Amino acid sequence: MSTLKERKADIEALASKMGKQVYKPAQAKVTTFRKDYQKESDKLVSLEEAIKNSGLKDGMTISFHHHFRGGDKVVNMVVDKLAQMGFKNLRLAASSLQDVHEPLIEHIKNGVITSISTSGLRGKLADAISRGLMSEPVVFRSHGGRGSAIVNGDEHINVAFIGASSSDPLGNACGFSRSENAKSICGSLGYAIPDAQNADKVVILTDDLVAYPNTPASISESYVDYVVEVESVGDSSKIASGAIRDTKNPRDILLAKQAAKVIINGGYFKDGFSIQTGSGGASLAAVKYIRESMIEKGIKASYALGGITAHMVKMFEEGLIEKLIDVQSFDKVAAESIRDNEMHKEASANEYASADEKGSATHYLDMVILSALEVDVNFNVNVLVGSDGIIRGAIGGHQDTAADSALSIIVCPLLRGRIPCVVDEVTTLITPGSSVDVIVTEYGIAVNPRRPEIAERLKNAGLNIVDIHDLASKAKSIIGSPAPLPFGDKVVGVVMNRDGSVLDVIKNIEA
Amino acid sequence: MSTLKERKADIEALASKMGKQVYKPAQAKVTTFRKDYQKESDKLVSLEEAIKNSGLKDGMTISFHHHFRGGDKVVNMVVDKLAQMGFKNLRLAASSLQDVHEPLIEHIKNGVITSISTSGLRGKLADAISRGLMSEPVVFRSHGGRGSAIVNGDEHINVAFIGASSSDPLGNACGFSRSENAKSICGSLGYAIPDAQNADKVVILTDDLVAYPNTPASISESYVDYVVEVESVGDSSKIASGAIRDTKNPRDILLAKQAAKVIINGGYFKDGFSIQTGSGGASLAAVKYIRESMIEKGIKASYALGGITAHMVKMFEEGLIEKLIDVQSFDKVAAESIRDNEMHKEASANEYASADEKGSATHYLDMVILSALEVDVNFNVNVLVGSDGIIRGAIGGHQDTAADSALSIIVCPLLRGRIPCVVDEVTTLITPGSSVDVIVTEYGIAVNPRRPEIAERLKNAGLNIVDIHDLASKAKSIIGSPAPLPFGDKVVGVVMNRDGSVLDVIKNIEA
Repeated sequence: MSTLKERKADIEALASKMGKQVYKPAQAKVTTFRKDYQKESDKLVSLEEAIKNSGLKDGMTISFHHHFRGGDKVVNMVVDKLAQMGFKNLRLAASSLQDVHEPLIEHIKNGVITSISTSGLRGKLADAISRGLMSEPVVFRSHGGRGSAIVNGDEHINVAFIGASSSDPLGNACGFSRSENAKSICGSLGYAIPDAQNADKVVILTDDLVAYPNTPASISESYVDYVVEVESVGDSSKIASGAIRDTKNPRDILLAKQAAKVIINGGYFKDGFSIQTGSGGASLAAVKYIRESMIEKGIKASYALGGITAHMVKMFEEGLIEKLIDVQSFDKVAAESIRDNEMHKEASANEYASADEKGSATHYLDMVILSALEVDVNFNVNVLVGSDGIIRGAIGGHQDTAADSALSIIVCPLLRGRIPCVVDEVTTLITPGSSVDVIVTEYGIAVNPRRPEIAERLKNAGLNIVDIHDLASKAKSIIGSPAPLPFGDKVVGVVMNRDGSVLDVIKNIEA
Repeated sequence: MSTLKERKADIEALASKMGKQVYKPAQAKVTTFRKDYQKESDKLVSLEEAIKNSGLKDGMTISFHHHFRGGDKVVNMVVDKLAQMGFKNLRLAASSLQDVHEPLIEHIKNGVITSISTSGLRGKLADAISRGLMSEPVVFRSHGGRGSAIVNGDEHINVAFIGASSSDPLGNACGFSRSENAKSICGSLGYAIPDAQNADKVVILTDDLVAYPNTPASISESYVDYVVEVESVGDSSKIASGAIRDTKNPRDILLAKQAAKVIINGGYFKDGFSIQTGSGGASLAAVKYIRESMIEKGIKASYALGGITAHMVKMFEEGLIEKLIDVQSFDKVAAESIRDNEMHKEASANEYASADEKGSATHYLDMVILSALEVDVNFNVNVLVGSDGIIRGAIGGHQDTAADSALSIIVCPLLRGRIPCVVDEVTTLITPGSSVDVIVTEYGIAVNPRRPEIAERLKNAGLNIVDIHDLASKAKSIIGSPAPLPFGDKVVGVVMNRDGSVLDVIKNIEA
C-alpha cells in the first residue's frame, strides 16, 4: 500500500508535466442556508456597480436588444447612467432602435455615443441622424447579419445589457415571468442570445427577480456576469407598436388577398410548408386568407417563422401550424404563447437567420411575405430610407428571409399618396433583386425573370402578371417623376448585406 | 437623388475602410420545396463521412457522453469505425466509461486509443487499465471539473460524438423524442452540452431523425456540424445500471435512516432547502425518510439536483420539490419527466457544478448525500479505487457537491465483508476532507472538527456522534489491518481536483 506521502514525488512530477499545480487544501466552505444566501449572490449589484465591475471603458461597445420595441426602457436607462458616470465615445450595438430612443440624440451630441450599429432607426433619432448628427456612419445590418457579425467578431461586444422579464440571482433570464410579481413580458429573447453568448461581459436587467432556478430560461447563468434589479425593463403594451399593426386600409387588404393568392398558387403551398410573414399591414392581413385556404384544402404548415403574431398563434393552436419558431414575439399573445407552449420554439438570431449557419431556420423557409418602402425595376428593395431621404425603417429579417426562402413575395403599393413606390432605382439598396421573386402591387404582380416557373404558375391561376417596368412607368404616368432628393456629401449610414459585404451607403439629407 | 452608380466611389471607400468587400450579386436561390429538401440537408451524412469531413487526424481528441450508462452504444460504434478507418493515437475524452466499453481494450492495444480522460472506469476495461494497459495515465475529473476543463481549454475537444434520442436534420438534438418512432430515451444531455458548445466539430448520432424543428432541443443546431442516423444510440433499459439500484440491503437501509436524520437535524432542513442525493443505494434510500419528514413538518424543497431519480420525480410531482435540476437522468422515470415537465430543468455540466461559474447549481446546494468506497480519519474520501487497488468507480459530482454544499454527508459502511471502509488513509484521494462534513456509518456518525456546530446539532437530536479515529480503530479491531496492496511503479491514473490541480496518482496494481 503506497501512502500519499510516498506518492508525493509522482504527483509533483505529473502535475509539473501537465503544467498544473498540486492540490492545496481548500478554504472554509460557505455554510449559510442557501435560500438566504441567494439574496446575497455575488452577481446581484446595482446598475452602476455592474458597469464599474464590467470593465467598460471609453471607446468600447455596448449592446441592447429591442424585444420591447416602442416600450423599451433599458437603452435610455443604461445610456443615461453611462453619461452620468462620464463615459464617452461608446459604440452602441443595438438589435434595433425605436422612436422611444430619441434621448440618444443628446447623448450623441455630448459625445457619450459616437458610433451605432442597428437594424433600423425611427422617429426623431432617425431624422437627426439622416441630417448628419453623427460623424461616423450608422452601420445597418439584418438580424441574421448582426448574429453572424457578433459570432465572427465583426461586431465585438464588450458589455451586453439585456432587459429580461424575469431573472434569478444567478442570471437565468427570460422574456417572461412565471411569478406572481411579473411586471413585463416580451416573449422571445432571440436577438439578445448572440449578445449573451459572445459579449465579454453580460449584465441582465430585470423587473422580476425570481428564486433560483428560473425555469425555463432563454439565457443561461453561464453567460451572465451581473444581475441588476430595476423598476421596469419595458412597457409590454407597446410591443405591438412600430411596424406592427392590424390593417383596416382597403388597399392593404387588396394587396393581402393578392399576396395570399401568390402563396397558394406559387408552387410551395403543400402539406408541410413553412412560412414567414413580415410586420407590414398587408403581410399580416394575408395570413387570414392563407388560413382559409389551408382549411379548405386540408394543408398544414410544418412551421411559421419570424416575428410571431397573434394570427400565427391562433393557427398554431388550431393545429394548422405544427411549430412556431420565434426570434421575436410581435405582440403580447405571441409572448404569452412562448411562455405557455413548449412547441412554440424560441430561436436565437443565428438559429433564425445567420447566413453562416447551415442550419438557420431561414434555410428551410419555403415562403415569405415582406413589405417594402420602394422596389425597383431590378427587383431591388428598400425598407430603410423613406422617399424623402429620411431613415424610417429597419432591415429586420428582410435580406435574410428573401435570400433563403424558396419564394419571396414583396407586397408594395404602386403609390403611397403622391409617392411612387415602384421606381427605376430604389433610394437605398437593402435587399438585392436576386433575392426577390415576386412583387405584389395593386396594379398587378411582377415576377422576377429569374423565376419563369413561378410566373407560369401564377398566370395559370389567373393572376394579373405584369412587367415590373410597366409598373414603374405606370407610377410615373400617374404622378410624374419626383424631384431629386437633396442628398449631401456626408455618409450617414452604411448598409451591410447579411454576408458582411457592403451594399450601399446613405448620404445626409439637406432639406 | 443620387444613384447607386454615383454612390459607387463612396461605397468602395467605406468598404475598404471597414476591411469589407462590396456586395456581389448572389447566386441562384435554392428553390426546392423545403420539406423535401430537409431530407437532403448538407449535415446529414454517414458516420464515415462525418469523421472524414470533421478533419479528425491522428493524435486528436474525440469526446463522448455517458447518459446511456451501461446501455451506451455510441462509444463502441464510433471507435470501431475509427479503428477500421485506420486512425491511431487518439485521445478519448468521455464524461464517463462503463462496463459496456470493454471493447476499448483492443483499441488501446492496437494503438487507436492512447489517452483517456473520464470521470470513472468500471469492469474489464478498468481492470486492464489498473494493471497497466496504457502508457499514458488516465485523467480522472469530476463532472464539474470536466466542464471547466472543456471551457478553459485544458481538455480541448476536436470532434464530439453525441448520441441523441432525437435530432432533426440540422442537429437540434435531444435526450428524448416526441415522435412515434422514438427508439431510445436518456433524458438530460447535460454532460454533452459543454462538448457541443466547445468542440471544434460536433457530430450528432441519432436513432430517431425527426422533422425540423426538433422542439425543445438540448443542443442547438448552431453547434452541430454533422448528423448521422444510426440503428441505435443506446439501450434505455440499462440507464439505471452501474451505480444506481434500489437497495434491499438492511445495512444500507440503516445507513439511509441515519443519513436522513443528519439531513433533518443538521440545521439546513428548512422550507426552501436544496438537496442532492448521490447514486449509492443508501443515499437513494434516504430520500424516502426525508420525504416522510418533509410531509410531517410541512417543509418543501426549492430544488433537487443531480442525478435525478424516480424518487425525486415522485416528490416533485407531489409538490414537495419545486424544481428538479437534472444534469443526468438516473432512470427512465426521470428521463420521461424531463420530457414531460418544463419545470424539470436540464442543466449542463457547467450549470451543474463548474467551480469556475459563480452560478453553478452546486453553489446553491444546501445538502448532499454521497457514497464512498473508503473514507479516512482526515475525512478524505475515495470513490474511485477499490480496496484491491483496482479502479471501480467514478468521481462523478462527488468533489463538486461536497465542496460547494453547506452540508455534505458521506454514507459509508465501516466494513464491506472483510474490507475496512473507514481507514487511516484512503487508497486514493478523490474528495479532500476539507469538503466533507459528516460521515455516517453503521457504528456511529463522525463530524468533521471543522464543523462543530453540526456536531452540536446532531448530538442534541440524540444521534450517536463518534470520533472518526474510533471508527477506524473499530474497523481495525474487527478485521485487522489488511495486507498492503501490491502497487507497482507505473502511474496508470491521475486524479484531478475540480479546480484543475492534481490531487493524487493511481499506480498500477501487480496482483
